[in-house]
Amino acid sequence: MAQAAEERTARRRGSRRSADNAPGHVIPQLPWKQPRLRMKPVDLLSADEIEQIHQAALTVLEDIGMEILLPEARDLLGAAGAIVEGEMVHIGREIVEASIGLAPESFTVHARNPEHSFQMGGDAIVFTPVGGPPNCSDLDNGRRPGRLADGERFFKLCQYFNCIHIAGPGVDASDVHASIRHLKIAQARILLTDKVGFTSATGRERLFDGIEMARISRGISHEQLLAEPSCHTVVNTNSPLKLDGPMAMGIIEMARMGQVCVVTPFTLAGAMAPVTMAGALVQQNAEALAGLALSQLAKPGAPFVYGGFTSNVDMKSGAPAFGTPEYMKACLVGGQLARRYKLPYRTSNTNAANSVDAQAAWESVFSLWGAIMGGGNLIAHGAGWMEGGLVASFEKFIVDIDLLQTIEEFLNPLDMSEDALGIEAMREAGPGGHFFGTAQTMARYANAFYSPVLSDWRNFEQWQAAGSPTAEQKANRVWKQALEAYVQPAIDPAIAEELQAFVARRTEEGGQPTDF
Amino acid sequence: MAQAAEERTARRRGSRRSADNAPGHVIPQLPWKQPRLRMKPVDLLSADEIEQIHQAALTVLEDIGMEILLPEARDLLGAAGAIVEGEMVHIGREIVEASIGLAPESFTVHARNPEHSFQMGGDAIVFTPVGGPPNCSDLDNGRRPGRLADGERFFKLCQYFNCIHIAGPGVDASDVHASIRHLKIAQARILLTDKVGFTSATGRERLFDGIEMARISRGISHEQLLAEPSCHTVVNTNSPLKLDGPMAMGIIEMARMGQVCVVTPFTLAGAMAPVTMAGALVQQNAEALAGLALSQLAKPGAPFVYGGFTSNVDMKSGAPAFGTPEYMKACLVGGQLARRYKLPYRTSNTNAANSVDAQAAWESVFSLWGAIMGGGNLIAHGAGWMEGGLVASFEKFIVDIDLLQTIEEFLNPLDMSEDALGIEAMREAGPGGHFFGTAQTMARYANAFYSPVLSDWRNFEQWQAAGSPTAEQKANRVWKQALEAYVQPAIDPAIAEELQAFVARRTEEGGQPTDF
Repeated sequence: MAQAAEERTARRRGSRRSADNAPGHVIPQLPWKQPRLRMKPVDLLSADEIEQIHQAALTVLEDIGMEILLPEARDLLGAAGAIVEGEMVHIGREIVEASIGLAPESFTVHARNPEHSFQMGGDAIVFTPVGGPPNCSDLDNGRRPGRLADGERFFKLCQYFNCIHIAGPGVDASDVHASIRHLKIAQARILLTDKVGFTSATGRERLFDGIEMARISRGISHEQLLAEPSCHTVVNTNSPLKLDGPMAMGIIEMARMGQVCVVTPFTLAGAMAPVTMAGALVQQNAEALAGLALSQLAKPGAPFVYGGFTSNVDMKSGAPAFGTPEYMKACLVGGQLARRYKLPYRTSNTNAANSVDAQAAWESVFSLWGAIMGGGNLIAHGAGWMEGGLVASFEKFIVDIDLLQTIEEFLNPLDMSEDALGIEAMREAGPGGHFFGTAQTMARYANAFYSPVLSDWRNFEQWQAAGSPTAEQKANRVWKQALEAYVQPAIDPAIAEELQAFVARRTEEGGQPTDF
Repeated sequence: MAQAAEERTARRRGSRRSADNAPGHVIPQLPWKQPRLRMKPVDLLSADEIEQIHQAALTVLEDIGMEILLPEARDLLGAAGAIVEGEMVHIGREIVEASIGLAPESFTVHARNPEHSFQMGGDAIVFTPVGGPPNCSDLDNGRRPGRLADGERFFKLCQYFNCIHIAGPGVDASDVHASIRHLKIAQARILLTDKVGFTSATGRERLFDGIEMARISRGISHEQLLAEPSCHTVVNTNSPLKLDGPMAMGIIEMARMGQVCVVTPFTLAGAMAPVTMAGALVQQNAEALAGLALSQLAKPGAPFVYGGFTSNVDMKSGAPAFGTPEYMKACLVGGQLARRYKLPYRTSNTNAANSVDAQAAWESVFSLWGAIMGGGNLIAHGAGWMEGGLVASFEKFIVDIDLLQTIEEFLNPLDMSEDALGIEAMREAGPGGHFFGTAQTMARYANAFYSPVLSDWRNFEQWQAAGSPTAEQKANRVWKQALEAYVQPAIDPAIAEELQAFVARRTEEGGQPTDF
């Protein structure tokens, strides 16, 4: 707590100390780092079966076609040879095939703090926090519509925890008018964090405002921005087989601006996709490939991420289900498809639980099992996502920090040095002895094992004497401790000023036109 | 509920209906089946690194040696060329190498109900329930020493749930004198279930009583028993590098009787094993290989299972930790070693939580992630294990049923038929349409997806109106429903009588001599 107080003092003094140095003293955590999947990703299907899905997706795009609401997108595809009939576009397989291999297999995404830039693709992994819920929740104040102040707290947690590589999207800010909400959220994010941010594609002004604010935050020229991906957006197709105006615009403009577009069909088997997982995956693949074609027609070589979000519904109620065996399979197959196309792969840490209980945890870890072993590069909704995306939970955020750090540590290579093989330690301990006092233990004990944030390993009596806290209750304390220990990252005053002026001007101009 | 009542009536009538047919109506569950890992198990280490561990283990056995307290075991090893100095035995690498390849890679374990026999090894998986805790726990009566009546309830749950392939060990029966406890437990197990059982190796009489009761329960001859594995035991070495009298006896006699011996070193890194995971794995491997050598010297070709139980301790408190990243790595490497020796592989579903909360779930699923992707064949403590093995929890048992069934369904192959690819369904739904009413959905919806036992997918308002139940609270209802719906399996009255006579005689004889 002395450390936390010291940090608060430093903050008040306007210290430039980076947040990476600050925490850890209060809450044990791993250093900033990108985990890498050094193991071979798990293949659920054979290469022939992956080809079946690929060919079926091409047939779907060619024969059934996509309904595309943006004239510019239809024009781009039509010019490439697609057959356009009203809003229906039949995209020939040669058009799709021509788009494969153009986008980079791996690229750097640049944060305003270069230490927080990261690799997207290859064996590198990034974790994002919860994105997009209208509601937030904590044990003190319950479930409620998200407000800007809640979003700011999530941004601080994103900055504080090293295993979160991207700041936001976070929770929605229901207390700010929709026309300027994106401006207020982006400004808060840029000031409270120095990590890569998210840009909404739900409107042309929102998209360009977000990109421009990413540019300002890095203090770079327009030309440099075009060459350096500095923000990302997620485009959800309107499954089945439909792409609305803003989504199509997002794909085209992000490509032209050289920014990261993650096209993620939301293919819930049994509702917006066939009731079979194979069918849902064919549809996911068709829609993602349509996005890829559009992106690469807009700008060949633009960064593009293959997104998978295929799960199933509960056929009794129609409710979406997550962290299911079907979801796990879809994660693995999605990864195989992304690798087939040599694209970075986006997948998610999901659950459909209503409270931060055992269900929330097991559905999350099953999701992560599929996501990580499937070779996911961008693990969306990494921390805080609840209720199938309706709620951003502060307690779940902390639970997920333990899950993500466990995975980071799991993916760290095993030390196979001579000393680590331990023959001398075994000789020293001797048969029937113990290792608490061996030279090897003495030299290594401090950092030998992962120190969890929440896992309670006290014996039952000690745990009971401490009030029998559940993981959720402990998490409630930890997110408050993290906010206490949080240190705002430094920003060049000129950049902060330029940002402020931009937001003021765009607010005056009305932001994003809305129907409200 | 009408169905449950009907089943209770059938039970009262002494119906011979198999339990497989009975449930499912009350609690949704998958049919009896052995899941198979069709995917390639995940390799954490290279083949060269596995060889490093193998060679280091051979060096440990040769140079440091094992302390072996049973004269007969020392004699067996000595006759094979090991250097015996007092209780220390230096086992030359040629002795170990000669034992590799003798034990079967895969074999059948026979249940008294042949429909519940299973394959041990290859890509086949079996799940056992919690084994061995002194305590049990449920939400109604809290945490308490286990009694025979509790053990009986666990046996009924093992019989009821199809995804549990083995009955017991279950919880200890503190209310029965230690000398005859094994008799009472085995009798209850055989009468309440028709699945393969566990036999304790903590004493010669216990071991032979258990084997004899397995023989009686199957109604087979001594000769047939010798040829057909019909029960299993677990031998935990006294890590580091020590094997006590009963454990060594267990290895030798189970081999001679042709029964399944699972040798599982309990190598907690930092306490009974080196503080490095590589070192702990070298030690695990050395101790398991010593067990293999002893087993194969006692009877070449005897069934043997390579057990891994390497985890780490919390270096701050010395408390054992489970479901950690270190545990996951150990699971993967253990599987690689077992495959190196062409042996079935035993690993476990573990956690160190004190309540059935998020921690219990995430530690369990992380364990299972390592266990399943590591190629585990015998997944011990599959359902109900808590507090690092100190407690058998009724609620956790039900949570684990959902976890194990999720894994079963995850491992089921994806339907890649023409119809499953769903092109016709997509044509029928059309762009922007939905799939609830397509012919494909109509034909498949009833069994399209896994139906969980506990996962609550109601929306927040419905869930709140239902009293905001956590997974733990729902599990409390489910285990009672399962006990209500449980149907005792049929047994030949002559066998039941022979069993009764055996237990009566052995009880009169004093059972297992104890120091009490």
